[in-house]
Amino acid sequence: MFFASDNAGPMHPSVRAALIAADTGHAVPYGDDAIMDEVRSRLRDMFEAPEAAIYLAATGTAANALTLATLTQPWQTVFCSPLAHIHRDECHAPEFYTGGAKLTLVGDDDKMTPDQLRTAIEDWPKGDVHASQRGPIALTQVTEMGRVYTLDELRALTQVAADYDLPCFMDGARFSNALVALGCSPAEMTWKAGIHALSFGGTKNGCAGVEAVIFFDPAHAWEFELRRKRGAHLFSKHRYLSAQMQGYLQDDAWQEAARAANANAAYLAAGLRDVPELTFVAEPQANMIFATLPRKTHKRLHAAGAVYGLWGALDGDPEEPIKMRLVCDWSISRDQIDTFLALLKE
Amino acid sequence: MFFASDNAGPMHPSVRAALIAADTGHAVPYGDDAIMDEVRSRLRDMFEAPEAAIYLAATGTAANALTLATLTQPWQTVFCSPLAHIHRDECHAPEFYTGGAKLTLVGDDDKMTPDQLRTAIEDWPKGDVHASQRGPIALTQVTEMGRVYTLDELRALTQVAADYDLPCFMDGARFSNALVALGCSPAEMTWKAGIHALSFGGTKNGCAGVEAVIFFDPAHAWEFELRRKRGAHLFSKHRYLSAQMQGYLQDDAWQEAARAANANAAYLAAGLRDVPELTFVAEPQANMIFATLPRKTHKRLHAAGAVYGLWGALDGDPEEPIKMRLVCDWSISRDQIDTFLALLKE
Amino acid sequence: MFFASDNAGPMHPSVRAALIAADTGHAVPYGDDAIMDEVRSRLRDMFEAPEAAIYLAATGTAANALTLATLTQPWQTVFCSPLAHIHRDECHAPEFYTGGAKLTLVGDDDKMTPDQLRTAIEDWPKGDVHASQRGPIALTQVTEMGRVYTLDELRALTQVAADYDLPCFMDGARFSNALVALGCSPAEMTWKAGIHALSFGGTKNGCAGVEAVIFFDPAHAWEFELRRKRGAHLFSKHRYLSAQMQGYLQDDAWQEAARAANANAAYLAAGLRDVPELTFVAEPQANMIFATLPRKTHKRLHAAGAVYGLWGALDGDPEEPIKMRLVCDWSISRDQIDTFLALLKE
Amino acid sequence: MFFASDNAGPMHPSVRAALIAADTGHAVPYGDDAIMDEVRSRLRDMFEAPEAAIYLAATGTAANALTLATLTQPWQTVFCSPLAHIHRDECHAPEFYTGGAKLTLVGDDDKMTPDQLRTAIEDWPKGDVHASQRGPIALTQVTEMGRVYTLDELRALTQVAADYDLPCFMDGARFSNALVALGCSPAEMTWKAGIHALSFGGTKNGCAGVEAVIFFDPAHAWEFELRRKRGAHLFSKHRYLSAQMQGYLQDDAWQEAARAANANAAYLAAGLRDVPELTFVAEPQANMIFATLPRKTHKRLHAAGAVYGLWGALDGDPEEPIKMRLVCDWSISRDQIDTFLALLKE
Repeated sequence: MFFASDNAGPMHPSVRAALIAADTGHAVPYGDDAIMDEVRSRLRDMFEAPEAAIYLAATGTAANALTLATLTQPWQTVFCSPLAHIHRDECHAPEFYTGGAKLTLVGDDDKMTPDQLRTAIEDWPKGDVHASQRGPIALTQVTEMGRVYTLDELRALTQVAADYDLPCFMDGARFSNALVALGCSPAEMTWKAGIHALSFGGTKNGCAGVEAVIFFDPAHAWEFELRRKRGAHLFSKHRYLSAQMQGYLQDDAWQEAARAANANAAYLAAGLRDVPELTFVAEPQANMIFATLPRKTHKRLHAAGAVYGLWGALDGDPEEPIKMRLVCDWSISRDQIDTFLALLKE
Repeated sequence: MFFASDNAGPMHPSVRAALIAADTGHAVPYGDDAIMDEVRSRLRDMFEAPEAAIYLAATGTAANALTLATLTQPWQTVFCSPLAHIHRDECHAPEFYTGGAKLTLVGDDDKMTPDQLRTAIEDWPKGDVHASQRGPIALTQVTEMGRVYTLDELRALTQVAADYDLPCFMDGARFSNALVALGCSPAEMTWKAGIHALSFGGTKNGCAGVEAVIFFDPAHAWEFELRRKRGAHLFSKHRYLSAQMQGYLQDDAWQEAARAANANAAYLAAGLRDVPELTFVAEPQANMIFATLPRKTHKRLHAAGAVYGLWGALDGDPEEPIKMRLVCDWSISRDQIDTFLALLKE
Repeated sequence: MFFASDNAGPMHPSVRAALIAADTGHAVPYGDDAIMDEVRSRLRDMFEAPEAAIYLAATGTAANALTLATLTQPWQTVFCSPLAHIHRDECHAPEFYTGGAKLTLVGDDDKMTPDQLRTAIEDWPKGDVHASQRGPIALTQVTEMGRVYTLDELRALTQVAADYDLPCFMDGARFSNALVALGCSPAEMTWKAGIHALSFGGTKNGCAGVEAVIFFDPAHAWEFELRRKRGAHLFSKHRYLSAQMQGYLQDDAWQEAARAANANAAYLAAGLRDVPELTFVAEPQANMIFATLPRKTHKRLHAAGAVYGLWGALDGDPEEPIKMRLVCDWSISRDQIDTFLALLKE
Repeated sequence: MFFASDNAGPMHPSVRAALIAADTGHAVPYGDDAIMDEVRSRLRDMFEAPEAAIYLAATGTAANALTLATLTQPWQTVFCSPLAHIHRDECHAPEFYTGGAKLTLVGDDDKMTPDQLRTAIEDWPKGDVHASQRGPIALTQVTEMGRVYTLDELRALTQVAADYDLPCFMDGARFSNALVALGCSPAEMTWKAGIHALSFGGTKNGCAGVEAVIFFDPAHAWEFELRRKRGAHLFSKHRYLSAQMQGYLQDDAWQEAARAANANAAYLAAGLRDVPELTFVAEPQANMIFATLPRKTHKRLHAAGAVYGLWGALDGDPEEPIKMRLVCDWSISRDQIDTFLALLKE
């Protein structure tokens, strides 16, 4: 009953197979391996972006921070939601990699609205040397609350950015879960919707540790390469990153895994709807569920071995509702979900 | 005939086996996995350092830069050789991670001497707010020229550092090759010889991408953890790092691999001694060979598919000697070496 | 009719006299001048802090950023108000000097409350390597809206900080205006109220460009000196900073000037109360007045040569109220104020 | 008998007069004062550079570090002499302001030669992501050993830089002393000789604390302004910087002061030539003299109150020669020099 995160499961069979297949003989290091050529080519096709600059990094935070740093001057501010992973969960990696940029928090939720974004941008006066200078907009897709920006929502936000000539970055740690939820193409959810650069997550969806970084404008390529090396994120045995991504893309394994994860979450959510004392905090749209339960129920679930995120201590008023996060990856079994639901409904 | 580096070979069977074995079910992320507990315990035993703080990183540059940054204030200078990897080959990762520390180059070779070190330290006056402040000593073992510091040499250098109360860092990307060359224990080559912190390399000796960081003084632990996360080097699916190190340590696979690599290099070096126009630049002591050959010979070797490092262009005076680097890892076959030697002696 | 800021007036006669008196012969550079010894001694007496480490910087931003950086690790967050000068008006100097610390905005006003502070601190979970780590509390006294924290308010906020073992920094760019408003002693408004370090402003109150930095715990001294030099803020001809501060402290010139500035603002505010269409945004407590006036009135005032801060364009709905800031320094004449009031009341 | 540095003397009468004249009424802050307009215009005329971007900073280290940072990416290396002030005397300000750039030391003296520069540049292979990337050349004029690059020497060095498309920065802390020594025009010693950006020193030659920064290419202007503010070097009461520079430029006071300083040094040097046990370390060409004397002589001089730089302790072998630095500014009297010479010759 492991619902703590999608960052803890095994490799998808296709990823593992590719990794093992790559593990033979000597391969040219530092990203010049033949598998990377194939990966780059596939991603360009997939994103309908034949000129895109494409790189791999081993952690989501690295992909985010290096990409943002390439788009952001140290005296600029990044506009993001107050729940953004880059703000809450990366121990200042964005600030570190940008050399001291600021994060301006937009709105008060996981999703920002165009009006909130415009207000936030206007709050920093243009051309004032004393103020933070306006920088990129960063959107997380799937959001940190498990919701998915629609294409219309994305386009409305990137239009605001465009009004101010600001670039748009997408933290796509759960890109695939959002994509299959929307049923659109990778290009539609990115550059056709005004996104300039992207972290394309693999780790949370069947890889051991790999994310692709995609700049739709290749002008950023060399600077990114220098930043990646300077950040100590250029792998000598790079083929082990390439191979993971190769297996991930093979026969659309990435979409298949995302569909499985979302279906698992939907199945779990459906079961949860029968639990009267449970309240959804946000409508589940991908593979994450946020809900509240009385503390005494959590206590019982934890005692029985269920593992998931909890915003509060197990001690205290037994009736008080406490927020939880349940995440399903592709690998979780229906049996586990059923066990959990049965336990909950006891 | 791949002698370009030891950063390009496959996983050692023991490493691969452990990686595959670990790839099942969900595991607690971010370094709290059970395999890491085992790895930590083994390394502490191996280094006779029950209190040591031990971490994993995926690249050698990350291990070096994060560890150095933990030991160095931004206004301090690191004392290293002018050939040090941290100076020549890390695109300012040490400067980045330390927040702008300087590297003071000691001597003019891969190895520094105690006198050179003392002179370099004295060159920065103590307590002068205008000057660089004295910081850690960084030694690479095996050196960048394939030589090995003897225990006496290490102790003499760390004694100089101790005279000034400066910490000593060892870049052990090829720690195992040095250790088996010296035939000493891990403790003897580190804390017993005055080393305070260490990068213990795995990647160049049979791992896919993992290095251990060892602080013999655990006071640095929490700061290192923050630096690692802020640098985006904390893996969510950390078990894939843990498992590599587990397999690497299993049944002394790391020493066996290093012995194989050194033996390969010795076998190659023995063959090279029969080549009259070849001159060794440094006496090979581990798994790297630096030598010169006339350009025309290099041209012939490259045309035949030999891959190795070269300090100069293949065009130009055919008789001019050009420096080359040949590296053997554990996985290179005697056949490949024989083919190369035969080709060379044609 | 210059009410734009208190950063634009001339030197107080006492400051100028000291500056000119110091301008003779050679003086030991870099802060080792005899006048600095005298200044240090006086400030220690004045603050009843015989051990305090005391330095001078030439700009308020330098004093703030260097002092905060000495108190803050790069992975920590500073708790400040959303209107704080360090957040709004220093172009990321705090982020730059701290090496990428974050600023967490507390509450939604110039003053924070203890409850807001506690909530903000609790929002960053302790000991979570992914999160921002809790760092110093930064309070501005006089606030950016011209209000003054009472001693009780200060003590209540620093008590919250103390509950979490966090240091407290005071941005005292207008320290003297606050002090004379409260009628307390320097010690009472600082270390006796739980403040650990302070920017003691001179520039806005009669100096040409000097602020004192005071650490009540001298353990920070050497690090601050290194940071100041590394930040290029150590003056060779330091006596010209020392002399300004000497003249500023001489015969309590600093308090006299602050009293004059506050009295000027009170006189202006009294006149403003007779203007029906004027609304105070915050009750003026020191030397700054925030109020709203219809746009058409601003237009008339500007056309007549009045200079002050305005939050909006002069074009647009003539009846719409627009916020303005009026600042009085010690040097503004009652004639100017009378002229302005007469103009306003036309 | 103060020969320790030219950073310790009083203001030149012209500078002081301008400072006092400026000290009246309110002036627009942050560099928008009318005096700055005049200063900018004069410097553009003086340098025959009508488009140049011109700023003021209060310390030489600020002028150097901010200007270099504007020209240097964090992954680039600055080429400078091993004696360069930016390397030896600024406590990592260049590393701090550039975000971790490296300083590559060229040659082994105060002056570098074109061949040494070319070798140093070639030592960092172009386009290698692992290496330091080639960045600006930094030349100090007058050098740190009191020598002056001839125009031919400057042009030969900047030509090497041009061959690699690298910008050239001049640390002109003693620009005026060099200029009057060469008898050329400001344009000839800068952009006509291939210099792209300059610190034009005032502090060491009669100002209280002001340096001009000059970019001959104004494309750098806005970035510099942001860097200056972010570095906390933008003065609110900027007129006090402007006025110093105004007085400095008035009636060529800067050249007159430099001529006086150089003449003082020449007079002193002439006297020193009669001291048999004194050996010049470098031929004095501007206002600094480097020479050696037996320790016992130093002891005598110090006991008599002479103040100057010394590379060694006063205790030890009395006959051993110790290096000293004697600096003359414009304000030192011939009496002081005569007294010193008489004392020396006793």
